[in-house]
Amino acid sequence: MKLLKEDIAALDNRQRVLFINSLSGFKSVNLVGTADKDKNTNLAIVSSVTHIGANPPLLSMVMRPHTVPRGTLENILQTEVYTLNHVNADIYQQAHQTSARYPEDVSEFDEVGLNEQWNDNFAAPFVSESVIKIVNIEMPDDLVADDGFVSLEKAGTVAVSSLDTYHSTNTLGSLSYAKPEKPSR
Amino acid sequence: MKLLKEDIAALDNRQRVLFINSLSGFKSVNLVGTADKDKNTNLAIVSSVTHIGANPPLLSMVMRPHTVPRGTLENILQTEVYTLNHVNADIYQQAHQTSARYPEDVSEFDEVGLNEQWNDNFAAPFVSESVIKIVNIEMPDDLVADDGFVSLEKAGTVAVSSLDTYHSTNTLGSLSYAKPEKPSR
Repeated sequence: MKLLKEDIAALDNRQRVLFINSLSGFKSVNLVGTADKDKNTNLAIVSSVTHIGANPPLLSMVMRPHTVPRGTLENILQTEVYTLNHVNADIYQQAHQTSARYPEDVSEFDEVGLNEQWNDNFAAPFVSESVIKIVNIEMPDDLVADDGFVSLEKAGTVAVSSLDTYHSTNTLGSLSYAKPEKPSR
Repeated sequence: MKLLKEDIAALDNRQRVLFINSLSGFKSVNLVGTADKDKNTNLAIVSSVTHIGANPPLLSMVMRPHTVPRGTLENILQTEVYTLNHVNADIYQQAHQTSARYPEDVSEFDEVGLNEQWNDNFAAPFVSESVIKIVNIEMPDDLVADDGFVSLEKAGTVAVSSLDTYHSTNTLGSLSYAKPEKPSR
């Protein structure tokens, strides 16, 4: 199958959304935890978190106001903080459900049945059920190897493809630092 | 384990790179094919391709000149085109090897043993061994469901975590469009 620009334009909307969302490859899937100044919480699923740099640590997240609950973006603008929480196999169904358009005065935490975890002096909630939680980074010691590698697989972190399909993973291999004179293995 | 800013700053460089690269979750992994105006080719592995929007189709890619061969960026600026090629389980070792710092006058296609595929009137090469190839999108018909969903798993597309660990995937489930009154399943 070869698709040119005009073929993609001819797809119906839902087809184009599923198809184009598949093209970048497997995506990370995280829950963004936020609160307004009165600690009314929001929880939203995002697949656009990307590694930018390690020193200083820098991640990017793309939000589109019309697909993600506007409350999340407004909360971030109010408090200037948010948490990222990896989605694992035990909670991917609740995580997906946060993408429903709930009324503004309810919290997705309550609606989907995930628990808020508050840390001292930090204005956004973590997801208690998530194994790897990011801002001040929090994770079990046994996930982290001496060389700094974090086993997302051991954490049960999942990937997403297209819009709605969730995957666990199997390690194929860890490859050595690539050098011109030496093939990877 | 809780890591604060000062703990991350205290890691040695290699540890910080592996650790921080793990935090965003599973990443897509693609080969970027380019050529200069004389059709001298470059091939580079990237994990920063992200879905931005479906209509019009829009992907983002972040390149850092000092980690990705500068040749790729220079070629894109010269010809204004590039191809994206999903990495599958059969070629992930060759794909990883493209990250070695080869001399400027060699092509990573030759060095790692992947084949160039040229399409008429297009100034950048595809990777022949890749199942899903993106610009004018090219993929086998049987990967695409009626609703537009593309099975990355059937294509053998892999994910990457941290810097160097490659993973195949298992589908956990495809969830229905989330609505407030109906739990996902």
